[in-house]
Amino acid sequence: MVSKKMKELVKNNSVIREMFEEGKRLAQKYGKENVYDFSLGNPSIPVPEKVNQTIIEILKNEDSLQVHGYMNNAGFEDVREKIAENINKKFNTNFSKENIIMCVGAASGINIILKSILDPADEVIAFAPYFMEYKNYINSYDGNLIEISPNTKDFQPKLDEFEKKITPKTKAIIINTPNNPTGVIYSEKTIKEICRILEKKQKEYSHEIFIISDEPYREIAYDNNVVPYITKYYNNTFVVYSYSKTLSIPGERIGYVVIPTQMEDSKNIITAVTIANRVIGCVNAPSLMQRLLLNCSNEKVDITTYDENRKLLYNELTKYGFECVKPQGAFYLFLKSPIEDDLEFCKKAKEYNILFVPGSSFSCKGYVRISYCVSNDMIKRALPSFKKLAENYMM
Amino acid sequence: MVSKKMKELVKNNSVIREMFEEGKRLAQKYGKENVYDFSLGNPSIPVPEKVNQTIIEILKNEDSLQVHGYMNNAGFEDVREKIAENINKKFNTNFSKENIIMCVGAASGINIILKSILDPADEVIAFAPYFMEYKNYINSYDGNLIEISPNTKDFQPKLDEFEKKITPKTKAIIINTPNNPTGVIYSEKTIKEICRILEKKQKEYSHEIFIISDEPYREIAYDNNVVPYITKYYNNTFVVYSYSKTLSIPGERIGYVVIPTQMEDSKNIITAVTIANRVIGCVNAPSLMQRLLLNCSNEKVDITTYDENRKLLYNELTKYGFECVKPQGAFYLFLKSPIEDDLEFCKKAKEYNILFVPGSSFSCKGYVRISYCVSNDMIKRALPSFKKLAENYMM
Repeated sequence: MVSKKMKELVKNNSVIREMFEEGKRLAQKYGKENVYDFSLGNPSIPVPEKVNQTIIEILKNEDSLQVHGYMNNAGFEDVREKIAENINKKFNTNFSKENIIMCVGAASGINIILKSILDPADEVIAFAPYFMEYKNYINSYDGNLIEISPNTKDFQPKLDEFEKKITPKTKAIIINTPNNPTGVIYSEKTIKEICRILEKKQKEYSHEIFIISDEPYREIAYDNNVVPYITKYYNNTFVVYSYSKTLSIPGERIGYVVIPTQMEDSKNIITAVTIANRVIGCVNAPSLMQRLLLNCSNEKVDITTYDENRKLLYNELTKYGFECVKPQGAFYLFLKSPIEDDLEFCKKAKEYNILFVPGSSFSCKGYVRISYCVSNDMIKRALPSFKKLAENYMM
Repeated sequence: MVSKKMKELVKNNSVIREMFEEGKRLAQKYGKENVYDFSLGNPSIPVPEKVNQTIIEILKNEDSLQVHGYMNNAGFEDVREKIAENINKKFNTNFSKENIIMCVGAASGINIILKSILDPADEVIAFAPYFMEYKNYINSYDGNLIEISPNTKDFQPKLDEFEKKITPKTKAIIINTPNNPTGVIYSEKTIKEICRILEKKQKEYSHEIFIISDEPYREIAYDNNVVPYITKYYNNTFVVYSYSKTLSIPGERIGYVVIPTQMEDSKNIITAVTIANRVIGCVNAPSLMQRLLLNCSNEKVDITTYDENRKLLYNELTKYGFECVKPQGAFYLFLKSPIEDDLEFCKKAKEYNILFVPGSSFSCKGYVRISYCVSNDMIKRALPSFKKLAENYMM
């Protein structure tokens, strides 16, 4: 009795569950401390102290009916105004509360945008490797994901293929930088080129093509790398932001969507996205977490630990003979599988109690994703096993 | 550039916004204290003290990364187990954590169920008057809402019409008791009769027809009225619960879905609903609010004030000559418009600074919904205006 659309997802779920069960089985057999799980994207850096302090103050000092109550589906006005101000200060933009819609995390933000703009058979372009859930989001609104094959040289998108695959049905593209799973930041040159191509195609087809910029990792950039703010380059840009990684609070489901006034038909689109927030059942972003942001929207976790993990893993794994583009942001490292079959490589890694996710899950075969949002200690304990794993392949 | 499905909603939204603006305009003109707004369903009874105390204790004593972190898309296991235990104690059922999926409020709960079971052109039956958002939810998954006309005698559903309107395409029915907007509780006799009809039709068409029981007002029942627990009468029942009204925390978006093991294909449906929670972008119910429920899932607001409001309004309005079925639960009173055109009646009420929602918005013309989740004081201040309003119609 499961709907046709969901049936396939239910079927695939058993594969993921098997991987998960396998992890649990290994932990039981060898002890949790002897299993090296690099498969999850759950932040490991402590929540900034100010976060819990602020929540406690809100609960003690403010009117509970308002703190926990309904507000406009777009979110509390003062919170949205504060967020707009912060973005303006950081990126020299010119937003006000009208441009900000609070949402239940970035996943929900992408959903309310897609629901607002997609008609059946519309196409949304994504650059491989990409977060596979995009496909499910797009299919929910009867759209089709069009994939641009990965550029495994440096994982900047392949722009020639991109230009060729834009059709009259292209309604949007999704970009995600710093990128999950590669850790690569799209350069300003890349962004400018993407925008130039889109401007040209908009004219050619006489309709808008939107950029949806999925930015949960914006604040996790290393070596003073700059992550360009896309609305400055292209008017028809939705920015989707989440505090999951910035404040280490992924379970709380709090983020926002930015819709610039300069976007074509922005007034109706802002209304549509606000209504979509209601109709998909979120109604509004969790209210206490919204109140928190009034005082904490500029806080962020100290990413030093992630950076140490990044350097340690990158240096050691390349020393053992593995190949990998050095990540510039996020907390993932995208390792080239020493054999063509990344699933086979994952299986082999499991023999050494190392768990990571095959690149096939991101539409990029021949690679694996290593999440380093884990303890530095676990990485150190895992290194000898990585070395042994390498010895299977390197001479 | 707004999608076709959303375009109509954007258009209708301006009508609602006009009503809202009108309320603000009246408040500015006559002073907020002289405008009697009975149009909103925002709880007014204080949040139980234990709620904020418990949140503060959690923040002080538990590991922040876990409190604010990801968990299984269905929710924390200990929370789900606790909720199952509480339901079992109250209703003599036999649920465990597998039967409970935490969700972002009831609206989201209904969405993840519909996404899991509806194929295009499937029919979902609702008894008028009903919460109009149901229609949007069902349309999101390309289903059609089939309406049963209202029984204005006592607002128990019309079961003869119901039986006739079940077709091979009927996939589910939605019931909502205590009911928004009538305040009526469906009797055990009604529930048993609904289930008998559905059992018969399931056999006739050789496929399941689900009941989706939307129960945000379950705990708001007066005069010791009993609200039957539907899974005890019918195996293919989804229960959708929300803490919005029970704890006066509607902005926090926290609730759960119950899927009984006895439901046909329950294992796959539980998986589908869990995945749907992820795919519509909720990912999981807000984590801190889930942790709260471990200690507060049996707390509830003191509904004495609502009950006082109910009696006061019912007694006075009927004294003035208005007609109304006495509400048994929720915090709404469904008043018969003294003239056929309920929109016209709403306009007339506005002349006396009284705001309420036309029954047309619940697919029941000739009535208006009065929300009495307001201060007792405001009702007392509004009564002379209600009396004057009545004098326009009663001789």
